[in-house]
Amino acid sequence: MSNKEYIHVGLLGLGVIGTGVARTLVNRADELSRQVGCQLALKKALDCDVTRKSTSGIPDHMFTTDADQILEDPDIDIVVEVIGGDTDAFEYFKKALVRRKHVVTANKELISKHMAELIALATENNVDIRYEASVGGGIPIVSPLKQDLVANNIIAINAIINGTTNYIVTHMAAENMDFSIALKQAQELGYAEADPANDIEGIDAAYKLAILATIAFRSEIGPQDIYCEGISRLSSRDFRYARELGYAIKLLAIARSDHDSVQVRVHPSFIPEETLLANVDGVFNAIEVEGDLTGKVIFYGRGAGSLPTTSAIVSDVLRIAQRIHLGLPPTTQPITSSVKKITPISEIVSRYYMRLTIDDSPGVLAQISKILGDHLISIASVIQKEADEKSQTAEIVIMTHPARESAVQKAIQETEAIPVVKEIGNLIRVVD
Amino acid sequence: MSNKEYIHVGLLGLGVIGTGVARTLVNRADELSRQVGCQLALKKALDCDVTRKSTSGIPDHMFTTDADQILEDPDIDIVVEVIGGDTDAFEYFKKALVRRKHVVTANKELISKHMAELIALATENNVDIRYEASVGGGIPIVSPLKQDLVANNIIAINAIINGTTNYIVTHMAAENMDFSIALKQAQELGYAEADPANDIEGIDAAYKLAILATIAFRSEIGPQDIYCEGISRLSSRDFRYARELGYAIKLLAIARSDHDSVQVRVHPSFIPEETLLANVDGVFNAIEVEGDLTGKVIFYGRGAGSLPTTSAIVSDVLRIAQRIHLGLPPTTQPITSSVKKITPISEIVSRYYMRLTIDDSPGVLAQISKILGDHLISIASVIQKEADEKSQTAEIVIMTHPARESAVQKAIQETEAIPVVKEIGNLIRVVD
Repeated sequence: MSNKEYIHVGLLGLGVIGTGVARTLVNRADELSRQVGCQLALKKALDCDVTRKSTSGIPDHMFTTDADQILEDPDIDIVVEVIGGDTDAFEYFKKALVRRKHVVTANKELISKHMAELIALATENNVDIRYEASVGGGIPIVSPLKQDLVANNIIAINAIINGTTNYIVTHMAAENMDFSIALKQAQELGYAEADPANDIEGIDAAYKLAILATIAFRSEIGPQDIYCEGISRLSSRDFRYARELGYAIKLLAIARSDHDSVQVRVHPSFIPEETLLANVDGVFNAIEVEGDLTGKVIFYGRGAGSLPTTSAIVSDVLRIAQRIHLGLPPTTQPITSSVKKITPISEIVSRYYMRLTIDDSPGVLAQISKILGDHLISIASVIQKEADEKSQTAEIVIMTHPARESAVQKAIQETEAIPVVKEIGNLIRVVD
Repeated sequence: MSNKEYIHVGLLGLGVIGTGVARTLVNRADELSRQVGCQLALKKALDCDVTRKSTSGIPDHMFTTDADQILEDPDIDIVVEVIGGDTDAFEYFKKALVRRKHVVTANKELISKHMAELIALATENNVDIRYEASVGGGIPIVSPLKQDLVANNIIAINAIINGTTNYIVTHMAAENMDFSIALKQAQELGYAEADPANDIEGIDAAYKLAILATIAFRSEIGPQDIYCEGISRLSSRDFRYARELGYAIKLLAIARSDHDSVQVRVHPSFIPEETLLANVDGVFNAIEVEGDLTGKVIFYGRGAGSLPTTSAIVSDVLRIAQRIHLGLPPTTQPITSSVKKITPISEIVSRYYMRLTIDDSPGVLAQISKILGDHLISIASVIQKEADEKSQTAEIVIMTHPARESAVQKAIQETEAIPVVKEIGNLIRVVD
């Protein structure tokens, strides 16, 4: 039992999430303190935007625009970092650790890029880092994966971990809507940002996948290791064909143990419509973890938003505060114990959906089949749609049996070069 | 860092789960030891059935029929209790704690009935108790609820936590099968025991719900507090009507914050067919937790079986072993901090499904409607099915708006007394 009467929190960032955290810490101070066993209180909150002094609703004296008021205050025990990004946030994070402050963060970019360095620095300074909020918002996943599933060898993770893209693909599917319109709607509703690239290109999902894969495989896996393809090439036709074939299309973040190496990839995926993952709609997230003992376990809930993310952050703060109060040493440990190779995307084996626009003339399918056959890609089914009379073209959809990505890419190149093939509409991997 | 070179495990019980645990500890000794940081080894395993010496596949010298070989061995640090029940297991559990051994268990009966006493004894003896496997098999739920959602006020838990009953209701729904046949099939496939009462009467689900509710509401809630109704009254007709009305029927374990008190109940429930819970089929489990910050979070997976349960047990063993190795004090703490009243079932408010067999004569519905109206129960919809010509009876199904249980029970009694009402087929609560 420590003899501290107060445990003080400093908050870096008063955006949507920071405001949720600040209000929860202030409004529930009594309740949270009871759970800790001594007073837990927000002391200072930083934002460079002074208008947030009033909009955040915290008492005026708690607001500061000077990070050192938090980082240099020996009275602050726990720093919550919700600035985001890896510039200022990274510097503040490291400084907080060096000043022997525990850090709780929701910053997936920072954790995915610098986890090993930050953990080393925390260990050196005898403090804890917690980042449950960095993946899946209010869904417990970091801690369950790290602790409750630790007896398993993880076989695979299939995750819907970006709410913006899941909102967009859900609407494209349900309303037969094209990408640009669905994106615009999502922006109007505040589910997508003005510059949506980070979400729709799969970058945000890749940050989160890097964190999950690092924990699951105990090997340092960064965003740069992840093959990443966004949702902007999807058309309403892809969703229509998917439905006909019994699939949903989701942006999946996939990590898979592959003998001595690991597959890590983010891309639109066909998933069988009867699975739970195929039915995760709108801004919801779901993370499916397959362990060799436990089988498939799914964690589902709101993957973003102020209050769900606040749930994860304040729970992390509480756990650290309880340890401080009890005088217990920090638990942060290096989580990587091996170095796993990353399987290049060209070497993965998958089933594929291919959509092509062709001249509506005899013999075209024979030519395409020949190319696929030459590359040892065998066809599971073909749908040929009625021709468009005006343009004299037709659309065909091919589902393949499992094939190697490199072979499929070569076959697609050769197919594209046939004069009667007008366009390769899309190529989407099937995840079973 | 402790200077122990070995951490030894003693195993009580070599049934299906014990065998899974024993084999995992033996076969993965190197891997698990690497994770702990020192040798983690199974030392002795107890079973009163000597045939299990060979069937379990553990080395002969590890087998014993004498519990003291484990409980009195100062060299054993962690005891895994998978005997089940609350007689021998309870004595051994307490003795292990008194002998300052950490205990990991899958025993929901014991934990739900004696949690406070066991935690007090563990605290007194400076050891840990872990029981992740007691609810949801391989699904992490105890620890996430206790730790990762701790910042929330829990509003409700809706859980499918008994695989046997979920297997039975899934088959009744899918194959239009009657209860007795579905039960027999489940028994033949090993999904139901020869004496199935514990599962089909909802007792097993009530044990698990007591554990979850105790953690969620930080108040001591035992199995005796839980209103409990099994699935044996369900008929294939109920499933047919449910489908027509847009619902699935599941045995739900429900805990709900209700002002200053708590509702805890296990009963068959109508749930809207489009929800994820309605689509949890077969032996799978799902626990939906609604927190005031995080919203609804769902944990899904295999709720029973040797390997999933082994996953939870061995993960718990690993976490304790890591603490022993690092010389850290135990973390077990009392989890109850308040005493919440239990709402009597008569006071709950719910929508209801009622199925009745009536004489096929004019005016019957008017009589029933009058009784319901007298008790302030308003009708949302009525389905009257074509009459059975031979018996001159018809079946009607009534869906009510929200009504108080006590009023509904009185109305049902009065309805049953009308001469033209032949039988109250079923009364099932709707959970939205």
